[in-house]
Amino acid sequence: MNELGVVYRNIRRADSDIAAKLGALGVATVHEAMGRSGLMKPYMRPIYAGASTAGTAVTVLMHPGDNWMLHVVAEEIRPGDLVVAAVTADCTDGYFGDLLATSFKARGARGLVIDAGVRDVRTLGEMQFPVWSKAVSAKGTVKATLGSVNVPVVCAGALVHPGDIVVADDDGVVVVPAGDAQKTLQAAAAREANEGDKRAKLAAGALGLDMYGMREPLARAGLRYVD
Amino acid sequence: MNELGVVYRNIRRADSDIAAKLGALGVATVHEAMGRSGLMKPYMRPIYAGASTAGTAVTVLMHPGDNWMLHVVAEEIRPGDLVVAAVTADCTDGYFGDLLATSFKARGARGLVIDAGVRDVRTLGEMQFPVWSKAVSAKGTVKATLGSVNVPVVCAGALVHPGDIVVADDDGVVVVPAGDAQKTLQAAAAREANEGDKRAKLAAGALGLDMYGMREPLARAGLRYVD
Amino acid sequence: MNELGVVYRNIRRADSDIAAKLGALGVATVHEAMGRSGLMKPYMRPIYAGASTAGTAVTVLMHPGDNWMLHVVAEEIRPGDLVVAAVTADCTDGYFGDLLATSFKARGARGLVIDAGVRDVRTLGEMQFPVWSKAVSAKGTVKATLGSVNVPVVCAGALVHPGDIVVADDDGVVVVPAGDAQKTLQAAAAREANEGDKRAKLAAGALGLDMYGMREPLARAGLRYVD
Amino acid sequence: MNELGVVYRNIRRADSDIAAKLGALGVATVHEAMGRSGLMKPYMRPIYAGASTAGTAVTVLMHPGDNWMLHVVAEEIRPGDLVVAAVTADCTDGYFGDLLATSFKARGARGLVIDAGVRDVRTLGEMQFPVWSKAVSAKGTVKATLGSVNVPVVCAGALVHPGDIVVADDDGVVVVPAGDAQKTLQAAAAREANEGDKRAKLAAGALGLDMYGMREPLARAGLRYVD
Amino acid sequence: MNELGVVYRNIRRADSDIAAKLGALGVATVHEAMGRSGLMKPYMRPIYAGASTAGTAVTVLMHPGDNWMLHVVAEEIRPGDLVVAAVTADCTDGYFGDLLATSFKARGARGLVIDAGVRDVRTLGEMQFPVWSKAVSAKGTVKATLGSVNVPVVCAGALVHPGDIVVADDDGVVVVPAGDAQKTLQAAAAREANEGDKRAKLAAGALGLDMYGMREPLARAGLRYVD
Amino acid sequence: MNELGVVYRNIRRADSDIAAKLGALGVATVHEAMGRSGLMKPYMRPIYAGASTAGTAVTVLMHPGDNWMLHVVAEEIRPGDLVVAAVTADCTDGYFGDLLATSFKARGARGLVIDAGVRDVRTLGEMQFPVWSKAVSAKGTVKATLGSVNVPVVCAGALVHPGDIVVADDDGVVVVPAGDAQKTLQAAAAREANEGDKRAKLAAGALGLDMYGMREPLARAGLRYVD
Repeated sequence: MNELGVVYRNIRRADSDIAAKLGALGVATVHEAMGRSGLMKPYMRPIYAGASTAGTAVTVLMHPGDNWMLHVVAEEIRPGDLVVAAVTADCTDGYFGDLLATSFKARGARGLVIDAGVRDVRTLGEMQFPVWSKAVSAKGTVKATLGSVNVPVVCAGALVHPGDIVVADDDGVVVVPAGDAQKTLQAAAAREANEGDKRAKLAAGALGLDMYGMREPLARAGLRYVD
Repeated sequence: MNELGVVYRNIRRADSDIAAKLGALGVATVHEAMGRSGLMKPYMRPIYAGASTAGTAVTVLMHPGDNWMLHVVAEEIRPGDLVVAAVTADCTDGYFGDLLATSFKARGARGLVIDAGVRDVRTLGEMQFPVWSKAVSAKGTVKATLGSVNVPVVCAGALVHPGDIVVADDDGVVVVPAGDAQKTLQAAAAREANEGDKRAKLAAGALGLDMYGMREPLARAGLRYVD
Repeated sequence: MNELGVVYRNIRRADSDIAAKLGALGVATVHEAMGRSGLMKPYMRPIYAGASTAGTAVTVLMHPGDNWMLHVVAEEIRPGDLVVAAVTADCTDGYFGDLLATSFKARGARGLVIDAGVRDVRTLGEMQFPVWSKAVSAKGTVKATLGSVNVPVVCAGALVHPGDIVVADDDGVVVVPAGDAQKTLQAAAAREANEGDKRAKLAAGALGLDMYGMREPLARAGLRYVD
Repeated sequence: MNELGVVYRNIRRADSDIAAKLGALGVATVHEAMGRSGLMKPYMRPIYAGASTAGTAVTVLMHPGDNWMLHVVAEEIRPGDLVVAAVTADCTDGYFGDLLATSFKARGARGLVIDAGVRDVRTLGEMQFPVWSKAVSAKGTVKATLGSVNVPVVCAGALVHPGDIVVADDDGVVVVPAGDAQKTLQAAAAREANEGDKRAKLAAGALGLDMYGMREPLARAGLRYVD
Repeated sequence: MNELGVVYRNIRRADSDIAAKLGALGVATVHEAMGRSGLMKPYMRPIYAGASTAGTAVTVLMHPGDNWMLHVVAEEIRPGDLVVAAVTADCTDGYFGDLLATSFKARGARGLVIDAGVRDVRTLGEMQFPVWSKAVSAKGTVKATLGSVNVPVVCAGALVHPGDIVVADDDGVVVVPAGDAQKTLQAAAAREANEGDKRAKLAAGALGLDMYGMREPLARAGLRYVD
Repeated sequence: MNELGVVYRNIRRADSDIAAKLGALGVATVHEAMGRSGLMKPYMRPIYAGASTAGTAVTVLMHPGDNWMLHVVAEEIRPGDLVVAAVTADCTDGYFGDLLATSFKARGARGLVIDAGVRDVRTLGEMQFPVWSKAVSAKGTVKATLGSVNVPVVCAGALVHPGDIVVADDDGVVVVPAGDAQKTLQAAAAREANEGDKRAKLAAGALGLDMYGMREPLARAGLRYVD
């Protein structure tokens, strides 16, 4: 049962070094390394091209049209955290703007991932404060109802526990459970190491059909060529 | 009842100085100053990043797939106007392109807000002619049926009367009724004046919880901290 | 009946010179020259601003969540081709990333038009490999089921035959049947030639109402001016 | 500027006899009689098939996720009224259920038109209390923020003033401004009278092409028959 | 290139007996028999539950907001035909109502499949005239621009040639190319014959895992059971 | 990390008596009793009006366009279970039809909740096998890739653990964590007991304003009446 009106102050954060390394590997590689899981819905988009970040999740759950808890979560941010904000129902209101961004940044936040709208996006871009959101909207919110901080939330279709690692870039947002951080990093790094060589071969004209040994399984599956 | 087939030529425009000042304050601030009203739906997006404008509304109502009235409205544009175009049903067709933009610009238009699609967007960007639209589409339109010019229209969920002030930027589009222009400017300017100081405090690490005096009402509402 | 599991290797491509010329004229002009037909749905967007291309279509049909056939189609690409990818049902998964782009580019592809999602979009932008897609998603795909290559496909609402010319830019994507290429080029070029003069007149303040002789038909249709 | 926190108690209602007669004519006919205007967006659907009603509008404006004002509007309902509820931003929450329906019905309401969600729809159907909404959702709302009653609202794209006539059936919802009620009724009735005869002819195999004299204008427009 | 302004009067219709038999087998079975192809997008829904039909396609292509060609296509209907209507851009307007339905029915039409909106849906239900559409909308259309009749069209993502068989029921709409009608019927009938036996076994508690021999391929693919 | 390719056979189911009692109370009441949490997105709709069920969740996670695991989950169903099916990306394909329904029913399943499409919906209605889905689509799926059974899944925005209670009716679908079942039942029953009395008072014309003591807080919040 979602607890509303509670702020959990002591959460166990994943290792911030691992977060940084996963961030460098990027969302697509990390998502593959996790067995193609943990991805938020593709409607989550960065507010400016080239935004890229990674951090440990501090979560917040809010009601539609009410951003009161964003002020509460600000106090819980530690350097290296990334705020993940969920709403109990679909809402595109602008929950977050330049004043909150100034505060989050001062607290050391690496960015915001919010399943709702944000505003002041030009200023946020100038501040280089990275945000992934469902919408951009100038629509303001009220401060009237309680939500919670640092409870597990479902954000844009993905389950996020406080302390999980969240990686976000132009390709979207992926959540790495804290307990899987180390092995995910290994798998992702291995995958990445493998890619440079492949890229060089493909650039030279090699075909994936040959490089990945696909011709035989395609033939077995019944693929037929007609000249 | 929507009048179709009528062009009102004499409209009372709001003060263009106020329009310019509201434009400088931006959509989010103006929208807040209006008591969080007057905003168009967030699906209205600028065709290039950084687009920003404000002007007095010249309105046009059209049928789906038919842009004939955009040629009629061109003649009604005076310097400082911004054209607000509504369609009687949902349509993403490209009603507007570089030729019309050239004409609108020559007439002194500050931009276009259209609840439909536009095209030639690269050229429009090069011309720095700002447009907010629901879609980008190369799909052309016909010129077969009458609409109206300078009647009140509902555009992207907002009511716009001819002569109202319309402010648009990266955060969306807001409509300020002509009769509310002066007091909205005062409220928006007061709000803005107030923000610089807040920003400095937040940047220095102050919390909104303290700055806005939220701790007590949050506690009263039942917020519980768990260490 | 859609053939699945077949690769047609010999297709008749439209003239690549005509493709290049149509590309220079742009999607909106070509679409108009075709009598306002052949356009894909406006949800197809370029992954970076300013992307623009034209080529002869090599088509591929895939199942949702399965990009195996993209490796098959790579072998069929000839310099000047543009890959058009359709899926048998709506899907936003990331079918295509930087490795496949490296391969496609090495084979001479002019770009990709895909009615699904793509990923590694920052790298694709750096490579200047133009892609039009329905979504951006890091979500990976499997390689388990057969589709077909170089069969006629419906992509984003438009019918594409292998060898047709496809033109894509910021305004969207348009398909020119191979058999109509020559006459479309003529019509588009004529249209274009006509526009420079119009643009100059409009920039000087002329009204479309006069330039296109619209006053009389508008009056006949019943347009009424109220001073 | 939207006034928030105000209840207007004295509104001038259109004639309820006219409302009833317009209701009998149906949404499509009334919409045509109004020159194809006044229609809400087609996402507004009845919660049960066959729902049909008409009444004088009592309006209410609310914030997303907050239905407090529905209790306020209940007191303003007079027999023959139909409640029109708008929200300041997109929201699918369930604002209205069987208890409020019981109350509205007891006050004489003819139904509800709401640009948001409702719940308890099976019970509402059993009560035969007609509702048109954007969504069905069990998601509850809070009672924390003020809106207004009997201010002009934009509901599902249509402007509604308190006292206007609203007609709703399986085809959607149409708004007839109070001042246009009489002439709309005449136009709608004339249109209806005309249809019985047409229907009989068409049922006997007559073609609209002949009945409406379309052959000549089609030929003039260039329609070409190929045998 | 889409021809606009042309009516093809002589089309080769598929066998109406086969159409009727395919209709009895239903959309899901026919779609499977076609190798899972030919299906329209799932947003196409019947206007009343239980609607079911099949016929030979008479096609019509129209512009957004303009239903003039529906009067033209009426004359081309022969008993056993089903009208398939496409629009050159997305549109939800109500193109079709009870008068046109009366006419279509009198001409022997088996129903309508339209990638747009319809109205008078209660009356259409009472007439038992089956319609599959993208939307229900009372929004009327104009009669101003030419489209075409009996040209190939893309309707809701599926390619339809005049004379093809179209089958529609609660599960959606599927198109069977005229040349594939006979073999599709055989495949569909074989599939159906096979299902009664399967159904009896499953009802008796047999598992698909055993009945379809899936245990071995699942184990080979790596499926792991944890007790 | 989502485990793919695993079937957990021993899950701890919540009490089936409590499930039945929660089902009788209905989704809206249960959702309120849970503090307005646990609800799936409102796009989840029953395939026939009046569908209503409750059971203990058996979960299944699948890839887009691949329903192989539905055959695997069938074996894990015990009487009183309700299958909850999630997909790793958005997909509207028809994963489930009458044969699987026959099998599920024979195993004692109370219904299916699936964040994707289903088909054979008329037959499913005749069988009175209740299904809540995102779409209806005849589009068939392949059987090529592994997913998992009885892992935690996010379905339509809600987190579901195997053994949780799921309640579904016309208002949507709500998930009650197994550990909260008993207290949720108490809260829901208390809420229900309370409603009969309220309903009677409201039916007699009492106002919620008085019954819930809202006049004073509304006045305090600043509500203003204008006569």
